[in-house]
Amino acid sequence: MSANQFGSRFVITSFGESHGTALGVLIDGCPAGVTFDEALLKKELERRRPGHHGAGAGQVVGQVVSGRAETDAAEVLSGVFEGKTLGTPIAMIVRNQDARSEDYAQIQKAPRAGHADDMWKNKFGHSDHRGGGRSSGRETVSRVMAGSVAQMMMAHVSAPTKVIGYASQIGSYELTPDERVRVTQNHIDSYQARFPSVRHNEIAEMLKKAQESGESYGGVAEILVQNPPANLGQPVFHKLKSDLAQAFLSVGAANGFELGLGFESAAVQGTSFHQGSQEAYGGIRGGISTGESILLRVSFKPTSSILDVAKKGRHDPCIVTRAIPVLEAMTWLVLADHYLWSKTDRI
Amino acid sequence: MSANQFGSRFVITSFGESHGTALGVLIDGCPAGVTFDEALLKKELERRRPGHHGAGAGQVVGQVVSGRAETDAAEVLSGVFEGKTLGTPIAMIVRNQDARSEDYAQIQKAPRAGHADDMWKNKFGHSDHRGGGRSSGRETVSRVMAGSVAQMMMAHVSAPTKVIGYASQIGSYELTPDERVRVTQNHIDSYQARFPSVRHNEIAEMLKKAQESGESYGGVAEILVQNPPANLGQPVFHKLKSDLAQAFLSVGAANGFELGLGFESAAVQGTSFHQGSQEAYGGIRGGISTGESILLRVSFKPTSSILDVAKKGRHDPCIVTRAIPVLEAMTWLVLADHYLWSKTDRI
Amino acid sequence: MSANQFGSRFVITSFGESHGTALGVLIDGCPAGVTFDEALLKKELERRRPGHHGAGAGQVVGQVVSGRAETDAAEVLSGVFEGKTLGTPIAMIVRNQDARSEDYAQIQKAPRAGHADDMWKNKFGHSDHRGGGRSSGRETVSRVMAGSVAQMMMAHVSAPTKVIGYASQIGSYELTPDERVRVTQNHIDSYQARFPSVRHNEIAEMLKKAQESGESYGGVAEILVQNPPANLGQPVFHKLKSDLAQAFLSVGAANGFELGLGFESAAVQGTSFHQGSQEAYGGIRGGISTGESILLRVSFKPTSSILDVAKKGRHDPCIVTRAIPVLEAMTWLVLADHYLWSKTDRI
Amino acid sequence: MSANQFGSRFVITSFGESHGTALGVLIDGCPAGVTFDEALLKKELERRRPGHHGAGAGQVVGQVVSGRAETDAAEVLSGVFEGKTLGTPIAMIVRNQDARSEDYAQIQKAPRAGHADDMWKNKFGHSDHRGGGRSSGRETVSRVMAGSVAQMMMAHVSAPTKVIGYASQIGSYELTPDERVRVTQNHIDSYQARFPSVRHNEIAEMLKKAQESGESYGGVAEILVQNPPANLGQPVFHKLKSDLAQAFLSVGAANGFELGLGFESAAVQGTSFHQGSQEAYGGIRGGISTGESILLRVSFKPTSSILDVAKKGRHDPCIVTRAIPVLEAMTWLVLADHYLWSKTDRI
Repeated sequence: MSANQFGSRFVITSFGESHGTALGVLIDGCPAGVTFDEALLKKELERRRPGHHGAGAGQVVGQVVSGRAETDAAEVLSGVFEGKTLGTPIAMIVRNQDARSEDYAQIQKAPRAGHADDMWKNKFGHSDHRGGGRSSGRETVSRVMAGSVAQMMMAHVSAPTKVIGYASQIGSYELTPDERVRVTQNHIDSYQARFPSVRHNEIAEMLKKAQESGESYGGVAEILVQNPPANLGQPVFHKLKSDLAQAFLSVGAANGFELGLGFESAAVQGTSFHQGSQEAYGGIRGGISTGESILLRVSFKPTSSILDVAKKGRHDPCIVTRAIPVLEAMTWLVLADHYLWSKTDRI
Repeated sequence: MSANQFGSRFVITSFGESHGTALGVLIDGCPAGVTFDEALLKKELERRRPGHHGAGAGQVVGQVVSGRAETDAAEVLSGVFEGKTLGTPIAMIVRNQDARSEDYAQIQKAPRAGHADDMWKNKFGHSDHRGGGRSSGRETVSRVMAGSVAQMMMAHVSAPTKVIGYASQIGSYELTPDERVRVTQNHIDSYQARFPSVRHNEIAEMLKKAQESGESYGGVAEILVQNPPANLGQPVFHKLKSDLAQAFLSVGAANGFELGLGFESAAVQGTSFHQGSQEAYGGIRGGISTGESILLRVSFKPTSSILDVAKKGRHDPCIVTRAIPVLEAMTWLVLADHYLWSKTDRI
Repeated sequence: MSANQFGSRFVITSFGESHGTALGVLIDGCPAGVTFDEALLKKELERRRPGHHGAGAGQVVGQVVSGRAETDAAEVLSGVFEGKTLGTPIAMIVRNQDARSEDYAQIQKAPRAGHADDMWKNKFGHSDHRGGGRSSGRETVSRVMAGSVAQMMMAHVSAPTKVIGYASQIGSYELTPDERVRVTQNHIDSYQARFPSVRHNEIAEMLKKAQESGESYGGVAEILVQNPPANLGQPVFHKLKSDLAQAFLSVGAANGFELGLGFESAAVQGTSFHQGSQEAYGGIRGGISTGESILLRVSFKPTSSILDVAKKGRHDPCIVTRAIPVLEAMTWLVLADHYLWSKTDRI
Repeated sequence: MSANQFGSRFVITSFGESHGTALGVLIDGCPAGVTFDEALLKKELERRRPGHHGAGAGQVVGQVVSGRAETDAAEVLSGVFEGKTLGTPIAMIVRNQDARSEDYAQIQKAPRAGHADDMWKNKFGHSDHRGGGRSSGRETVSRVMAGSVAQMMMAHVSAPTKVIGYASQIGSYELTPDERVRVTQNHIDSYQARFPSVRHNEIAEMLKKAQESGESYGGVAEILVQNPPANLGQPVFHKLKSDLAQAFLSVGAANGFELGLGFESAAVQGTSFHQGSQEAYGGIRGGISTGESILLRVSFKPTSSILDVAKKGRHDPCIVTRAIPVLEAMTWLVLADHYLWSKTDRI
């Protein structure tokens, strides 16, 4: 297991610096015969891009996410032939075009508050100061590419499975119980900031102001997995919840994880909890998926790209919105990995 | 990476069924020359045992934790010679003596609500129904043994590092801010249920009643790492927070994880968050330890061993208290693993 | 991947020092539902023991192999229930009973020529000098236990597969072409030194003298895999030949490996080679098994336990005979590992 | 451990099909601070290219190796900044330019004798038939790129270490003892076919004829490691000899491996062997490097690209010459991997 590697069967390695030549991902372990859906890859990369998740996306770029104009055209270097995977490693890259590293040049002198810049420098002695190098959120391009291939694979074996991510809290705005129930009926990307509520325009307004003033907000993302395959998860150290927690906490500003009721369950008595709906469990028991919906929550701290450095660095006032396609990708990766793993549960 | 394996450098594999011949752990990757502290191993196993964490431990066994009389004497089978580790695999076992599998025999017919029993059966086709087999909390004996060796290793290289675990919430009882501040001055194990508050006797009373009536409570454990080494954590998929989350979520009833402010940070504005104390970050930035204290929280659902089956199965009314030495062990394992990993950060 | 670990799917970790408490092995990744054949386990351990591979085994102990009276009764600690594997880790140990470490005590002062004793001391700083510690051939007990479980697993999925090992050269004695052809009809273990030739008694005599005079011989073992499953092997770094070479070269005194014609093929012209029988290839093409018989050869240097130290240390005058059950075990492990691996070749 | 991955600390993953978009390699685990020597990378790629290893290289291309005009300009995509490694993954690619896949189109109908084409098709169901896809020798470009980075790393920590590869047998031509002794004084690449003998022109002539007539030859390559670091190798399954055997047998047509005397040692008596020079051992004892020169031999079967298909496919009449830079690269990879591994041998 190397540092930039994730998964035991469907194994990915992410590479690339924010302002280097390219970002990319290498998948080793995807079976042969998976139909390669280029449109899906493109769509998921598009969803990760700033400003492309709202009805009037064009107009709101500057409001809710960083205005960095990333085009992110993926190039598949290997592992796919005549529209299908070969069972050989799949390498995909996205070249960096909008480097603007001059904007970030001053980071060399003044590490950004709360940023990982100085941590990498301390650890490795030598680091790429341009735009956070590899600690930049831009690294998640690699995850989204890999996740889309995992999704293609799962389409072969568990077609009804869906992974739905949305913001359930941004700053002090939280989804109401009613709004959460309706989540599955909504097209999340049509809401500002991926907050599926009539209040989404208020939030967009708040975020726009935040960006102008150098403020930022934390938030919570929820991932709902509908119709997951049952029997996924490897006890005892690779329980499904365990690998999902690792996957989500590997995302930049993530600082909390919940399955089902999570921290709320602390105050619930067992007799209620266990007679309650499957929501309490969140679809995983004994570390293994039951086949019921899996509900996961991830908290994010407020982004740290604030103040003057940030203004030039085109910061996101809230990371949750952009993190959602990344969390979905990580979820697909865990599902694909555990699906392959489960093939050897029994003789 | 196999299912029962944890760590990349300090690699452990846990084995054993609850009512099988023995539980054990195998450590591969512990350097040679570590002073093997048998007393520490014994003490940590003792702390994991039911009823051995209070001043009047003997009296309160039946109150706060399962009364199962586990003796848990560890036998070291390999890897240690003349009081020091050899750099070869360290195998340690604890034989099962108090099997009472007749109590559990009925599980075969009636899987316990919320238990993993039926999940393992579904997944593997063939399972050990006696006392939960390997899904039993008893598996954590292996983790505690391994964790104590990790602690021995860290004593060589980072002597001031301390890992302090305590219950911060049991049912609706929560530590007050004042109580939390005083945590580091307390001997946690002298408090009932490891809840370091003057109210600990109330909680013990509540848990005693719960055990009699078949009720159970969830809770929250906190792990405070004082004086951790700096520069631990491997970006991007093995950030320190990421591996800690995996470690903690691999524990039985755990269903939530927080670093620093965690979910609370969602509602905090960035300008406050980043000007606040290091507590907000929890001692990890960019996935790498800063050297400041690391604060972690883990939530647990109410235990599921309730009602008639449970009465015979000697259930814990709240898992948090017993989980604390296990979480501490997992923390030591992550620290030891990442300490070794960091040896190759630079040429 | 840790140092004492072998395999990617059927993962084993070997542990134990020659004169420590116990030797053992932990298997993580064996599927649930494999019929556990205790008789096979016992038989294979017996075959590995000194002096138990000839018609008159009792009489020839002192002649051809070390007279160390190892009983080697395996204890299964976990992973098996009601006669079948559980899909959980299988731990097996053999306790050391005939330690006689006093014989070996002088090694501390005088490392044996060609032995690994001093190498381990240099590397790890601290080593178990008793009987070679973990560098002893006794470590192979662990491999034989693991290999027998691999064999049990393969019996479910590829019943006709057979692994036949025999000595093809001991000192200057080599099997004739005729003798090699008849190998599959013979019960190898009924021949002195597992050399399936009418000359086997001559060899026994030679080895007996060697033991008395402190001489030793090298040799060659051959492993013939009949009816292997096709399509095993993972290009490019885990070709079947590649993993077999690693497996075999991990055995103590092994210093050469050949597939099919091996070094002889260097002088054969391509037109002859490729029109020849499948023997030239040895049953593996492109790193993948064809389903035809696989022929492998392993060379061993003369054992180093010679001269006075050795006399007390009960040395084997030729390691090949005892290595054969170990090589067979390693072969089964590679087959089982790659069989499981092949389950995810295609979607 | 995934199929296309090699190494435990200095971990590489190779990717790319012969006639796909690009070949490449990803290194995860190279420490930060290694001086990146682009000239070395270029030189090693050049050495791997056909026809660039002889005094009059330009003239002899058609004689001794396939005339495929590969330019093989490496592009570094990540992990290097301002001339030094960052401790992040290093991705390098070489684009395929001279695809000529029309030549290979017929392979689809007629798999080449002895080639892996049909094996991959059987195994994966779907394969890239163009020029062998990933089973092509062209995949070794990835290894040479990775090996050159390993070499750069070792230059920091063990500057006197040298890896010298040469052909010791081609068809029936073998180096004489005298010629072998002089190997270290020679510039191997100045000899035809990397056979460091006055007879090298004879061999070139023989190979030229073979290419014209569709004949091919096997051979033996030797790798001499001078001044290796001592104490490399991880017992018991990752002995240095064990990982080297795996490394070498993962190369295309390799079918034999020897350390030191190898198969010859079978007929040598122990008293001679152990009183002989270190050559007998080959510089590795107990699986661990002694610091003395390591001598390794690898046999290759005659190449299979013969007859009419081959004529169009521009085949090599003997693979040994081109394999040498690949074997050297694999050696550097094993050394670098084990060097990093050894950093955690002792506390």
